[in-house]
Amino acid sequence: MGKSKEVSQAVINRIPRYYRYVSDMKNRNISRISSKELASMMGLTASQIRQDLNCFGGFGQQGYGYNVEKLHEELGEILGLQKNRTAIIIGVGNIGKALIKNFNFSSNGFKLIAGFDASDDLVGRKLGDITIQKVSELKDFLLKEKPDIAVLTIPRDCAYSVAEMLVNNGIKGIWNFTNVDLNMDTTSIPIENIHFSDSLMRLCYEVE
Amino acid sequence: MGKSKEVSQAVINRIPRYYRYVSDMKNRNISRISSKELASMMGLTASQIRQDLNCFGGFGQQGYGYNVEKLHEELGEILGLQKNRTAIIIGVGNIGKALIKNFNFSSNGFKLIAGFDASDDLVGRKLGDITIQKVSELKDFLLKEKPDIAVLTIPRDCAYSVAEMLVNNGIKGIWNFTNVDLNMDTTSIPIENIHFSDSLMRLCYEVE
Repeated sequence: MGKSKEVSQAVINRIPRYYRYVSDMKNRNISRISSKELASMMGLTASQIRQDLNCFGGFGQQGYGYNVEKLHEELGEILGLQKNRTAIIIGVGNIGKALIKNFNFSSNGFKLIAGFDASDDLVGRKLGDITIQKVSELKDFLLKEKPDIAVLTIPRDCAYSVAEMLVNNGIKGIWNFTNVDLNMDTTSIPIENIHFSDSLMRLCYEVE
Repeated sequence: MGKSKEVSQAVINRIPRYYRYVSDMKNRNISRISSKELASMMGLTASQIRQDLNCFGGFGQQGYGYNVEKLHEELGEILGLQKNRTAIIIGVGNIGKALIKNFNFSSNGFKLIAGFDASDDLVGRKLGDITIQKVSELKDFLLKEKPDIAVLTIPRDCAYSVAEMLVNNGIKGIWNFTNVDLNMDTTSIPIENIHFSDSLMRLCYEVE
């Protein structure tokens, strides 16, 4: 069990969704579920679910199905949610504020430990559990506190330069809201993009 | 050209990204580009780009490449961005506010015409170009104004019931921020999900 380089990207992409469904079941005090039931909830086939979970060593039991609590724990471990990684957020505009105030970083594997913004109006303000710091203090912070990932909610014009600076100073992953593809660069760290525009344009295409 | 049922989902998923790159080039006054150059910018192969765009009838010219302005226009037409569709937003919390204030709906094919919230504090307030209305007025609005899509930024507990009501009253697409999969339902309308959690958990998995 645990991270395996053999597992395909398609399977990895599905794991958070499994985790989400299994978390829901756990919250509803469901203690066990068959791959068939889980498949029907998720719009997949039972054999795909068994195949996906077998990539990490199974966890199911013939004739019993899955123990929900155990599966929840195992999926969380696969994802690395228990590793207490740290995150900082750069850019505290409306999206940044929304994430700080409403998004549950800790249940998704990260502790949000700091926020940075260029605006003097924001610096020193407390939002959620963090106090907003000057962006000029960012580099020192990176070297001292060694946060694992950065959430980028800055204007797109400065996306590349900030990303480069982050990578050069030890950031290990970027959650990218800037609507610029950072993946294409020489950066070798993992980047997850949230592209609002691409999503809405797909919907525009699909709507009759 | 235009929407074709023959085009695979994978190609459709790439079209907004093509559009984004071509928009950038247009803004930088680049007037033509070869499939090779475009491929190198986007981290794809030239043959994949030609293949993708051929699904909609081509647009390139041997030895010349693509006329950026024309390609921009054609991609926009494929996506249906010129159709001036209308959108409403339901739930004006932090994410809702961020979208209303900062997201450029019109450059992604939609005019945002109304916002609805359950909180009395918000009702009557003007945000961006819209005035927030009571959620109790939503049904009348749907029947009278017939908006094309709804942006769902409401708590997950009411995601299903609101989605069902929207579909029953003529909504043709949902941009879903509730972190609940609505696709699994009997709804036959297109739904685009923005799953913040899934994205951050994938990053958690990928980070060394």
